[in-house]
Amino acid sequence: MLQADLLIHSARQLVTCASPHGVKRGAALGDVGLIEDGALAIRDGRIAAAGRTGDILRDYTAPVQIDAAGKVVSPGFVDCHTHTVFAGDRAGEFEQRIRGVPYMEIFAAGGGILNTVRATRAASEDELTALALARLTIMLRLGTTTVEIKTGYGLDTAAELKMLRVIARLAEAHPADIVPTFLGAHAVPPEYKGRGGEYAELVADEMLPLAAEWFAGSHFARQGRRFCVDVFCEQGAFTLEQARRVLEAGRSLGLGARAHVDEFVALGGVSLAVGLGALTVDHLDVTTADEIGVIAASDTIAVLMPAVNFHLGTAHHANARALIAAGAAVALATDLNPGSAPCYSMPLVMALACRMYLMTPAEALNASTINAAHAAGMGAVVGSLEAGKQADVLIVNAPDYRHLAYMLGDNPVETVIKRGHRVVS
Amino acid sequence: MLQADLLIHSARQLVTCASPHGVKRGAALGDVGLIEDGALAIRDGRIAAAGRTGDILRDYTAPVQIDAAGKVVSPGFVDCHTHTVFAGDRAGEFEQRIRGVPYMEIFAAGGGILNTVRATRAASEDELTALALARLTIMLRLGTTTVEIKTGYGLDTAAELKMLRVIARLAEAHPADIVPTFLGAHAVPPEYKGRGGEYAELVADEMLPLAAEWFAGSHFARQGRRFCVDVFCEQGAFTLEQARRVLEAGRSLGLGARAHVDEFVALGGVSLAVGLGALTVDHLDVTTADEIGVIAASDTIAVLMPAVNFHLGTAHHANARALIAAGAAVALATDLNPGSAPCYSMPLVMALACRMYLMTPAEALNASTINAAHAAGMGAVVGSLEAGKQADVLIVNAPDYRHLAYMLGDNPVETVIKRGHRVVS
Repeated sequence: MLQADLLIHSARQLVTCASPHGVKRGAALGDVGLIEDGALAIRDGRIAAAGRTGDILRDYTAPVQIDAAGKVVSPGFVDCHTHTVFAGDRAGEFEQRIRGVPYMEIFAAGGGILNTVRATRAASEDELTALALARLTIMLRLGTTTVEIKTGYGLDTAAELKMLRVIARLAEAHPADIVPTFLGAHAVPPEYKGRGGEYAELVADEMLPLAAEWFAGSHFARQGRRFCVDVFCEQGAFTLEQARRVLEAGRSLGLGARAHVDEFVALGGVSLAVGLGALTVDHLDVTTADEIGVIAASDTIAVLMPAVNFHLGTAHHANARALIAAGAAVALATDLNPGSAPCYSMPLVMALACRMYLMTPAEALNASTINAAHAAGMGAVVGSLEAGKQADVLIVNAPDYRHLAYMLGDNPVETVIKRGHRVVS
Repeated sequence: MLQADLLIHSARQLVTCASPHGVKRGAALGDVGLIEDGALAIRDGRIAAAGRTGDILRDYTAPVQIDAAGKVVSPGFVDCHTHTVFAGDRAGEFEQRIRGVPYMEIFAAGGGILNTVRATRAASEDELTALALARLTIMLRLGTTTVEIKTGYGLDTAAELKMLRVIARLAEAHPADIVPTFLGAHAVPPEYKGRGGEYAELVADEMLPLAAEWFAGSHFARQGRRFCVDVFCEQGAFTLEQARRVLEAGRSLGLGARAHVDEFVALGGVSLAVGLGALTVDHLDVTTADEIGVIAASDTIAVLMPAVNFHLGTAHHANARALIAAGAAVALATDLNPGSAPCYSMPLVMALACRMYLMTPAEALNASTINAAHAAGMGAVVGSLEAGKQADVLIVNAPDYRHLAYMLGDNPVETVIKRGHRVVS
């Protein structure tokens, strides 16, 4: 008998989302690695074995055993694109939009993203940390055990570095794994109105070296994590050339690249980002068939965020079926932010992806676990229930993994295990 | 000092949804009766007083006091149209539909509503009760304190009466107030294929008298509740004449009337139901401007269910703005059922109504509380925080009532009080 710390057994369905060779593409995206009457052995915070209950109980013993009869056991969700650190909210703007006030009118009155920038600049590190911790706890209860978090509501050097420090504090204070991303080029701040190019220079020449230095001294670097620079390449935000300037500056500092592209207007950001070896391209709501081919032929992961489409009621949304058919690696994320996606829930994101994008429940689950883990640069550590990976495990009170996307509005996640420890039950 | 059992005080927002003169229409639907720094005094399970914290604390004392600082206090939600009692699920069909299998093909293979009828007929009263209790508990955690529940998955006399007995057991076993509705004419059962008229006769002549007799002997009647007969007037279900037959039979037995109308094809069900003095007309996804006028000129309440539109991706949905502009009384509901609305959550329904129907958060909240209470025949008892009404109260962990509809995917309901007692905290 092998010794484990924790056994979870008799699950009606164990969905491993296993993918030993990296992200899932094509038909593999539809395969969740389903094991009926499944079990997991967990030791030292890692998966020791996953398999049939009979086999696991024959090989392993453990002082703590959880009977998951009638339930589903799945990997913890990875939310690979969020803006979890911010102050203020925009419920008032939400109501204005419903009443038909044009966004540009809201923006001209000091609303929109600059509303959040103002509140975030004014907030202390302690305040921002407390606000974000409360959000992470809601997300953890909904099964999200790894969260990528971007800066981008500071938009000046001091406030962007403040956001990085907050993200580091979250990682120390919260059970979830946190992945920081530098998004100084999220919007052109009011001080640089009409001078986006100059602001991009500031991001490239001043902020990024300081961010890279911060990262090198952080616990993230000690843990061997990857640090990416991200940019919002969009009409009204940063041009293709400005985005290139920022991403190339990051590359010269050894940082990875990610990019918000094709959310409203296709500027050519996909080819730029893929050409620079970006880890991900995110949004893709108006991406052309040609650029879908570019993504599919690359290692870059397509991160889709249906809560944005749903919240804003956008006319176009990502063509997930074309991306999958072309062989692109597709991941899902909430895009949690107060303006375009006030959404905490990966189960709701899966529900939206099935209905709006016609992804199957299996595709949505893989896109929210193993593929999202790769999109966050954590694919070797989390995202699937495979021997050696971190034991981030959900016990879901549902008879079938498809209920995660099928049922609407409840939270079926009953127990959350992070690194082998129960953190929600 | 007046004595109360429980005081809730210092709420950032107390939203009373008060409406002393019945349902809310027009501009009143946009007024949630917001009191800043609000408080409630509760005595003998009822609201003794609602007002400013300073006033309530000056007038009342109580052994138990809840500080709701920073939070929202609202009436419990009323889910006024559900099919909470059923066996089986249809996650498999959900996946088939995503894959593009036509509904008629699913139906021909024994799927669709008849799938649920088969499972519900086969289930025992104990099984159905246990399944529905689990659902009611999820709904209660999401703030739903009153639930209307229809029969309609039995479709023969014995199984329809079994469903009524299950509904009565739920009312005795669960803290939520339960309102039964008889929907024997939900679909034409397989035994009557092609003979919908004969089945409608069976409902009218055999089932309804037995249902009325059951009701008269039930605790619902002793509590002075109203019992309605409902019918699905739709192409493929029951014709206008069949629907009239059923509703008139109910009327002759002293039962109220409700009707599922205009979900896919407008058959004239609105005018029929309003003409018969129906309490509600439900769905209204393809209702004409003329029939919107008919509803607005009547006492009949328009029950809208956006989760159906969202789940099925229907091309048309209810024109809430036209209904409100015309002066109709609008209520919202989940339509919880395994086929067209696997949705437990009134907050999600509000979120959907704001985005899909362009209802404001205030309109959505009134439609989910006071107007929904009237739609369930419970408007004199629940649905608002007014002196004398039952103390069904939510404490919501949000700074603004609009967050109920603005935020997506979490459950902001922190505490649920039913008849003055904490049932979720």
